[in-house]
Amino acid sequence: MLKLFYTSGTCALATRIALEDAGAGYEVARVDFSKGEQRAPDYLKVNPKGRVPALVTEKGILTETPAILIYIAQMFPAANLAPLDDAFALAELQAFNSYIASTVHVNHAHGRRGARWANEQSSFDDMKAKVSETMAASMQLIERDFFEGPWVMGEQYTVADPYLFTMETWLKGDDVEIADFPILKDHFDRMSARPSVQRAMADEH
Amino acid sequence: MLKLFYTSGTCALATRIALEDAGAGYEVARVDFSKGEQRAPDYLKVNPKGRVPALVTEKGILTETPAILIYIAQMFPAANLAPLDDAFALAELQAFNSYIASTVHVNHAHGRRGARWANEQSSFDDMKAKVSETMAASMQLIERDFFEGPWVMGEQYTVADPYLFTMETWLKGDDVEIADFPILKDHFDRMSARPSVQRAMADEH
Repeated sequence: MLKLFYTSGTCALATRIALEDAGAGYEVARVDFSKGEQRAPDYLKVNPKGRVPALVTEKGILTETPAILIYIAQMFPAANLAPLDDAFALAELQAFNSYIASTVHVNHAHGRRGARWANEQSSFDDMKAKVSETMAASMQLIERDFFEGPWVMGEQYTVADPYLFTMETWLKGDDVEIADFPILKDHFDRMSARPSVQRAMADEH
Repeated sequence: MLKLFYTSGTCALATRIALEDAGAGYEVARVDFSKGEQRAPDYLKVNPKGRVPALVTEKGILTETPAILIYIAQMFPAANLAPLDDAFALAELQAFNSYIASTVHVNHAHGRRGARWANEQSSFDDMKAKVSETMAASMQLIERDFFEGPWVMGEQYTVADPYLFTMETWLKGDDVEIADFPILKDHFDRMSARPSVQRAMADEH
């Protein structure tokens, strides 16, 4: 059975929702960031990067959300979570998820993980103060140029949807008003109503 | 014919090498960052993110290096640039490329693009001072835990190789001594000897 190393409030939520969407059997192993478990020797054997998610499969351990999401779509093709037979459409999906990983998530991380990239408290404060601006700019770009509707990639719900939804759950904490982005607000509301999302979030807090 | 929007010294090099590896026909359209062309209205129609690379295909425009690299591998299967028939191996490749995009490239960017995430010169200086440390940490992690050898993913050369190579070309400017990472130094040297890499870099400077 698949095993997901998971921490509430992190991007691992996207993988958990996708597993629910896929109807996959999986168990959850919690990594408690408040106790620093992500840097404990036992966990570094699972993921040397000290991050979540990590997905333990029969063939080995996978990390990095964009890779895990496409893997889930490939392993559970009946769930139709990615355009696996259309190289261009798949590349567009991958481009969307890559933008989330390398730009949106990174923007968010500057609000609380500034020590990854600087050493001074004044820098952390400066970074934190800019998060609402960078997150809003990313949401505007997505809404204007990349969200096809009604789902991220168009008529077909894909693994891009739980990944975007995960970012949407972070907006309030980043001082971004999701109501300023009506298309994303609608997406957030429709995602929140999905049973797969509700199951994934049942013990989120 | 494919058209690659390209700027020397950027991660677009990875795509260009992959196109050479694939034997693809393509033309290069230069985007001059020194003139701010990446933010000019004409280019924002190509890529609203104002970044390179962007790859114009018959079906539309693709952005984000990890997505473009897998697309090239899929469109030119004879070049055998990715394990397209093995979902787990493909996920490992995607995880590697996602780590480059969301961690290694982001580490590097803090040396010269601090204004993306902060506003004060003191923060930019603080970020810049940490780049050699974060880039070295990433190279150590790759060398110890993720580089299979002789190529990134093992016996088979893949699109992970030009992406890692692109990072390796940045190390000197980031005050990281590649000789401290003998496996990566060997990779860099073997990549530099490849005709595809030499063609891609012929007019790099």
